[in-house]
Amino acid sequence: MEFISRHLGPDAKEQATMLAQVGYDSVEALVDAALPAAIRAAGGPQLPEPLSEDEAQAKLREYASHNTVLKSFYGQGFSDTLTPAVIRRGLLEDAGWYTAYTPYQPEISQGRLEALLNFQTLIEEITGLSIANASLLDEATAVAEAVGLMSRAVKKGRRVVLDARMHPQVLAVAAERARAIELEVEIVDLREGLVGEDIVGVVLAYTGTEGDILDPRAIIEEAHTRGALATVDADPLSLLLLEGPGSFGADIAVGSTQRFGVPMFFGGPHAAYMAVTDKLKRQLPGRLVGVSVDADGQPAYRLALQTREQHIRRERATSNICTAQALLANVASMYAVYHGPVGLRAIATRIHDLADSFATSLVKAGKEIVSAQFFDTVTVTGVDAAAIKSALQEQGYLVRAIGADKVSVSFGESATAADVETLAAAFGVDEVAPAQGSRLPEALKRVTPALTHPIFSSIHSETQMLRYLRELADKDLALDRTMIPLGSCTMKLNPTAAMEPISWPEFAGIHPYAPAETTKGWHQLIHELEDWLAEITGYAKVSLQPNAGSQGELAGLLAIRRYHVANGDHGRDVILIPSSAHGTNAASATLANLRVVVVKTADDGAIDLADLDAKIEQHGEHIAGIMITYPSTHGVFDPEVRDVCDKVHAAGGQVYIDGANLNALAGWAKPGEFGGDVSHLNLHKTFTIPHGGGGPGVGPVAVAEHLVPFLPTNANDPAIDPTVPTEVGHGVPLISTEFGSAGVLPISWSYLAMIGAKGLEQASAHAILGANYLASRLHDAFPILYTGNAGLVAHECILDLRDLTSASGVTAADVAKRLVDFGFHAPTLAFPVAGTLMVEPTESENQGELDRFIEAMLTIRAEIQEIIDGTIAYEDSVIHNAPFTAATVAADEWEFKFSRAQAAYPVSSLRRTKYFPPVRRIDEAYGDRNLVCACPPPEAFDVSAGADTNTDEK
Amino acid sequence: MEFISRHLGPDAKEQATMLAQVGYDSVEALVDAALPAAIRAAGGPQLPEPLSEDEAQAKLREYASHNTVLKSFYGQGFSDTLTPAVIRRGLLEDAGWYTAYTPYQPEISQGRLEALLNFQTLIEEITGLSIANASLLDEATAVAEAVGLMSRAVKKGRRVVLDARMHPQVLAVAAERARAIELEVEIVDLREGLVGEDIVGVVLAYTGTEGDILDPRAIIEEAHTRGALATVDADPLSLLLLEGPGSFGADIAVGSTQRFGVPMFFGGPHAAYMAVTDKLKRQLPGRLVGVSVDADGQPAYRLALQTREQHIRRERATSNICTAQALLANVASMYAVYHGPVGLRAIATRIHDLADSFATSLVKAGKEIVSAQFFDTVTVTGVDAAAIKSALQEQGYLVRAIGADKVSVSFGESATAADVETLAAAFGVDEVAPAQGSRLPEALKRVTPALTHPIFSSIHSETQMLRYLRELADKDLALDRTMIPLGSCTMKLNPTAAMEPISWPEFAGIHPYAPAETTKGWHQLIHELEDWLAEITGYAKVSLQPNAGSQGELAGLLAIRRYHVANGDHGRDVILIPSSAHGTNAASATLANLRVVVVKTADDGAIDLADLDAKIEQHGEHIAGIMITYPSTHGVFDPEVRDVCDKVHAAGGQVYIDGANLNALAGWAKPGEFGGDVSHLNLHKTFTIPHGGGGPGVGPVAVAEHLVPFLPTNANDPAIDPTVPTEVGHGVPLISTEFGSAGVLPISWSYLAMIGAKGLEQASAHAILGANYLASRLHDAFPILYTGNAGLVAHECILDLRDLTSASGVTAADVAKRLVDFGFHAPTLAFPVAGTLMVEPTESENQGELDRFIEAMLTIRAEIQEIIDGTIAYEDSVIHNAPFTAATVAADEWEFKFSRAQAAYPVSSLRRTKYFPPVRRIDEAYGDRNLVCACPPPEAFDVSAGADTNTDEK
Repeated sequence: MEFISRHLGPDAKEQATMLAQVGYDSVEALVDAALPAAIRAAGGPQLPEPLSEDEAQAKLREYASHNTVLKSFYGQGFSDTLTPAVIRRGLLEDAGWYTAYTPYQPEISQGRLEALLNFQTLIEEITGLSIANASLLDEATAVAEAVGLMSRAVKKGRRVVLDARMHPQVLAVAAERARAIELEVEIVDLREGLVGEDIVGVVLAYTGTEGDILDPRAIIEEAHTRGALATVDADPLSLLLLEGPGSFGADIAVGSTQRFGVPMFFGGPHAAYMAVTDKLKRQLPGRLVGVSVDADGQPAYRLALQTREQHIRRERATSNICTAQALLANVASMYAVYHGPVGLRAIATRIHDLADSFATSLVKAGKEIVSAQFFDTVTVTGVDAAAIKSALQEQGYLVRAIGADKVSVSFGESATAADVETLAAAFGVDEVAPAQGSRLPEALKRVTPALTHPIFSSIHSETQMLRYLRELADKDLALDRTMIPLGSCTMKLNPTAAMEPISWPEFAGIHPYAPAETTKGWHQLIHELEDWLAEITGYAKVSLQPNAGSQGELAGLLAIRRYHVANGDHGRDVILIPSSAHGTNAASATLANLRVVVVKTADDGAIDLADLDAKIEQHGEHIAGIMITYPSTHGVFDPEVRDVCDKVHAAGGQVYIDGANLNALAGWAKPGEFGGDVSHLNLHKTFTIPHGGGGPGVGPVAVAEHLVPFLPTNANDPAIDPTVPTEVGHGVPLISTEFGSAGVLPISWSYLAMIGAKGLEQASAHAILGANYLASRLHDAFPILYTGNAGLVAHECILDLRDLTSASGVTAADVAKRLVDFGFHAPTLAFPVAGTLMVEPTESENQGELDRFIEAMLTIRAEIQEIIDGTIAYEDSVIHNAPFTAATVAADEWEFKFSRAQAAYPVSSLRRTKYFPPVRRIDEAYGDRNLVCACPPPEAFDVSAGADTNTDEK
Repeated sequence: MEFISRHLGPDAKEQATMLAQVGYDSVEALVDAALPAAIRAAGGPQLPEPLSEDEAQAKLREYASHNTVLKSFYGQGFSDTLTPAVIRRGLLEDAGWYTAYTPYQPEISQGRLEALLNFQTLIEEITGLSIANASLLDEATAVAEAVGLMSRAVKKGRRVVLDARMHPQVLAVAAERARAIELEVEIVDLREGLVGEDIVGVVLAYTGTEGDILDPRAIIEEAHTRGALATVDADPLSLLLLEGPGSFGADIAVGSTQRFGVPMFFGGPHAAYMAVTDKLKRQLPGRLVGVSVDADGQPAYRLALQTREQHIRRERATSNICTAQALLANVASMYAVYHGPVGLRAIATRIHDLADSFATSLVKAGKEIVSAQFFDTVTVTGVDAAAIKSALQEQGYLVRAIGADKVSVSFGESATAADVETLAAAFGVDEVAPAQGSRLPEALKRVTPALTHPIFSSIHSETQMLRYLRELADKDLALDRTMIPLGSCTMKLNPTAAMEPISWPEFAGIHPYAPAETTKGWHQLIHELEDWLAEITGYAKVSLQPNAGSQGELAGLLAIRRYHVANGDHGRDVILIPSSAHGTNAASATLANLRVVVVKTADDGAIDLADLDAKIEQHGEHIAGIMITYPSTHGVFDPEVRDVCDKVHAAGGQVYIDGANLNALAGWAKPGEFGGDVSHLNLHKTFTIPHGGGGPGVGPVAVAEHLVPFLPTNANDPAIDPTVPTEVGHGVPLISTEFGSAGVLPISWSYLAMIGAKGLEQASAHAILGANYLASRLHDAFPILYTGNAGLVAHECILDLRDLTSASGVTAADVAKRLVDFGFHAPTLAFPVAGTLMVEPTESENQGELDRFIEAMLTIRAEIQEIIDGTIAYEDSVIHNAPFTAATVAADEWEFKFSRAQAAYPVSSLRRTKYFPPVRRIDEAYGDRNLVCACPPPEAFDVSAGADTNTDEK
């Protein structure tokens, strides 16, 4: 059967019913009515004929066969590691985990919040710092975030010192990102000490990219003496044997947790970490899980400190991170839980001993190694690097050549004594010596116990791990149990046939810097995907480097900025952003050193053209461009979008079209054709990469021909000299690797290969049909805030609860919580308009599920009416007290003014399948407002709104 | 980390605590005390050094690389099919499905019972017969079962007629099995009509092995005219286009559902089906799911008609089936649910059209085909079969050569028009013609609607299927959520690393009759596994042909019988079976044409030696052998087992040691060394193949040197002439393929490769430790019925509830149901002793889980005490009313005399994780007694017990 018919929720009969409700004869007629003719593409995208599930997998197997899995001893931030099978199958490949959304609704996310809290605890314990976040995108951006954090926290100082001993790709990214926020970057080998003044901070490599170990204490003291902060970039596995940076006084620790059981994935996705001192905790970027209590006073997990980003001003918005690497952080977390302190220490020790044996053998044979002290990496100097690398490759081994005369050999979890023999032999050493003992500096050897928390000593057997994973997944609601009608998030089918290939060793087991001749399959897949995405969006070229939407935005905005500068337009630094935009837009603009000017939204949800004219008039030749989302976050197709683009172009600006809502357009309209110069896409929305409980994401950037030179560059390109700013006429490296979250790209490739151009049209049309069906069924109960052409919405609709709130006290948040009792994840809350719910059903939900949602919403509406009618007080109502746990409704005492049945079984279908949340409502005071994204709304960044936000301190 | 440390539940600390409780310093000391010295093996098994998860998978990848996946057009009962990815990942590879036990406890099995009921409904609808069972082992044994059923139902008649047009392997097995129950077998080409009298039944192939289609009506009428029954062996996919056998008056339909999405798996496991007329429903072998009601009067599924086997006598015990193919039946069931009538018909039509196009092309080019009418298989005659087959193999295609001049080409789901071109070209035909229309006989074309039940039209999209699979799994309790302490069933860890390889295409995608040079990897794996199993059991050779324990038993008993006959001892037909034996033992003996004599059990649970002497005395030279289980089903190591063996050997008998309880011995004692001549093993118990919700199973038979010639033969061996009985000096074919459930053998291979000899010792020792820990903690509350050396049990223990039942009215069944409220699957109920629970914790459960079980049992004991003390009446007690659904404890009305909290949360740990069954207690009157196995207890077969059972009608 064709994939498209499996991907679409409604079957033919349901389609007919839904169309009848909406009042159209066909989805084509509906799209004709909804989508402005002016933006319709002349022709659909040119994609290959769609393949079946099995044909697509067969083609991927062919691509896979063009990759060679070498035993990796390359290192440079990516290590060979063994994913325990129970974690691979029970978490990474389990729909209960990978189809989950970011845990903004904590009551239905206790399982993955616990897993992430374990991750934080792991990082806190091994780094010796008091607070860690729930992951960052990758090691390089984590260092960049640390630099930003130090810069924010240390008010004076204009310089940052980066250790030349960090991995080159990390240096390249961190240096460019630091320069983007106007820091001077000094790259020095910190073995030579820290000198100079006017420093905000220093980042020290622990251990160095060639394997050597520098005692961080002197550098940290020097930094503190100067009033600067100190960040340590550390391999977490090494910290089982070495003291954590916190114990030496470091303020921040960052690094990658990839080698905690996460496949190399040709470079990503992997979870980076960041931990900080207690003093810095409110500056920590990214997500942070905390413990709170529910309405019964029982402990419950939630995302904490979200408000620190909600309320920050432009000058502090130095992070635009929305996506974390939740799924991978959870793999790393479970890897640590499973191995525990004893197991992890044994793995680290074994790796160290093998490296020691290798080094000892070489030294005995008269070879020179760059450092007698190391953890896992031994760099041999004075050799013919190319010859050795090539000879080992013939034998199936991958090592790292550094320059012409150095070879670095980095040991991973699967390395064996036999490997040491083979490796040593390649250097002409036939006799392998035993490890000499320890190659770690005596003063740095770890004495602080690691992983003392009981969770790391309680899950020992596979049976226990299997059950722990199941237990946690069972606490949560994911797409495998319910529609997740999150406006702007496009929670649609993640096809299993597309998910399966990511675990294949020929994709998962490839080092990102493996030689091109061994990664041909990866390149075929990636370039084909880039071409398809360019075809779908109408742009000239796509880069798959950005590993999150936020990174795609940054890449796109940097391209705009550098384009202007290259044209001599140095003054074009104002970016126009409509008030309805995703909060990330403004944060990304700030990171690209652009000033944000907000454009108003008219009553109909469209951009206020008069205000646009006024802002263009006001900022004139400072206009760098406009950043719009299409269809808008108001859930409508703005018929005047071409006018908007034309006006901005006429003012000399560029048009950035945020692809967040591409699911309403794909196959029908191309942003690159109707006015866009650049867009980013969200492969984790429109192109079926699952949300993974809050990451991974992939945010490719697509540009028109004139912006192609400004696309991101590969951070590992040997041509990059991180000590020198990149030329303004070129792109910058954003993350560690060329292709960001390469590991999950087979998912989007498979989706497009299976759905084809016609299927893509159908998917978008059905997304529009679903939203309009819901709007049509619900508008009498809940007014639809915005509609466009013919009274239609696009692929999502905003239910306006404000009048009901006034009349009854029931808030949109109350409705969101009450939906849990019906087994639903809430729609998007309070975005883009406070007091509303934004509902996006996607094309993958069938009518039965939509009707179940409608029944729930109408039931809730009736419950609200009881309050309005005075039958029950708001405080006493079932809505205000929702959601209900099984323990609550099964309690011997029942003091509520509504019945148990109303609480737990408000509609009869729940008697067949019922989800009970594990906790009651969590601490309302803290965290309801940030349900869309951890990033702030654009108003917070508005430079034109008045003195408070307009007068930067720097 | 070593696999063994993951496989064992307790970590070092827990081991120490448990040993202290039991009173030993080490597991070795415990085993020394428990296991009689007389049976200890001189040395442990010689197995290779254990491999890690990844090393084992690497070795399997190497084996896999020695298999060649050819595009299969071979047919002969095994067709190329496409498993939808969502079903592969969501069912076949999902621990919630595959770790489940047989649904004897229906309250916690509603999900898989629904899936099996869907399977039955599918079969009923497409065959047009009124009742179908929940699967049989394979097509060949299904035909054998049908012959047996016809023979039972038709009292007169000594002959069965088998259609020569059936697949050769089916004929070979069915003929031998029919002869074993003393039927004359006539094999005729039914195109020539049915002649002769004295017939019990006929089995007709629909379609024939060469693809031709015979109108079954005349044959069925002829059979009925003679008072005989008619069975039709039909490919279920063909029945989407052809009328079902029921509509032509057939009494029975059988076949294989493999091509409904189940991989070819090198021959198995696959689910066969059997459907019968309403008149025959009480004769239907195997399991049957039915609809009943629970205590609230709500509909609920359960296994129905179990009593029909419980009460039958020897003369009707013509089936010994305990294992079904539940997991595979569920795959087939979901395949049908997902495709629905329209999709299935489209698949069948597409296949038919391709075959038509192929045939038309060949005929146009002057080639001769054996039948102008066919469904999916075209046999070309007058060609150089070997040359064509070989040429196609070079191109990656597998076809079937029949004799020297015929080639059969059978189309499957993945076949394409391009394949038709390649295939035709191999016959020298360059021009492919379109399909001519239909190649089906007009009179047989299906007009009856198929799959009219709504379930087949309600799950259309992948999202719906994903949720349906999750919803069903969530209703059930499997090993991924709780210990399943089933005595005699060894529900232990199914290691994920062992499970993963079974889906690899190089294992799953191989046709069982593919040429040996393309299946070298399979043979390496299988022969290595055979050797390891022989080494562990101390036998000379192992056959992996039997695809269930029952088949292994039959194979072993046939070997004994044929050995005696070969020695001229034709009169040795009495098999001694202790009263504690598994019921299957006696049923298998009957199928092997042996007479059962029961030997009593002494008070201590051991065989009553005096009674043994008496029975040997009584039956003298009729003694064929004894069938014992060791350690016995009483859960103890009988110290006199060597005496038992010696006595039987002295009487000229053979010793059959049932390997059901090998998990208590492996690594420490070898049945082949301490007295056994033959054993069968249960790879789905001791060797970690999961139970799959009631199958697949693998029951290899292991024999001493003198029995090697009598091991099963390969049914597809061209040397077999089914018209001639096999020589008594040789083995017989049992099932369709050489290696039974080959597809799951990588699981046991991986387990043994990873655990090694020392690990196996540890596993058995910890199984003994766990059972003794439970016995020690529970014996004050529930007397342990039997103990052996030093007051120790073996790997399981029997809790005697009979005194408590007398005092309180609470039955063992009540306790079983009450355990559901604590989140446990019940122990084995009423086997081997009525009024008891037999508990087997296995080595994979850690102390924490055992303590949770102990807490539950002690809590229940206190609940019983309340009844004994008169605090509450039995009828009013929480136990008698258990289990409780969420809806019950959340109901507004509460009329019970105990609290809601006591019902749902009797212990505090349930507040962290709570399972609610979806239904309340189901219809006690029907089905409590058969909880161990659907097979009858041995007493039912006892020929020495008196006239009632001793006087056969035939």
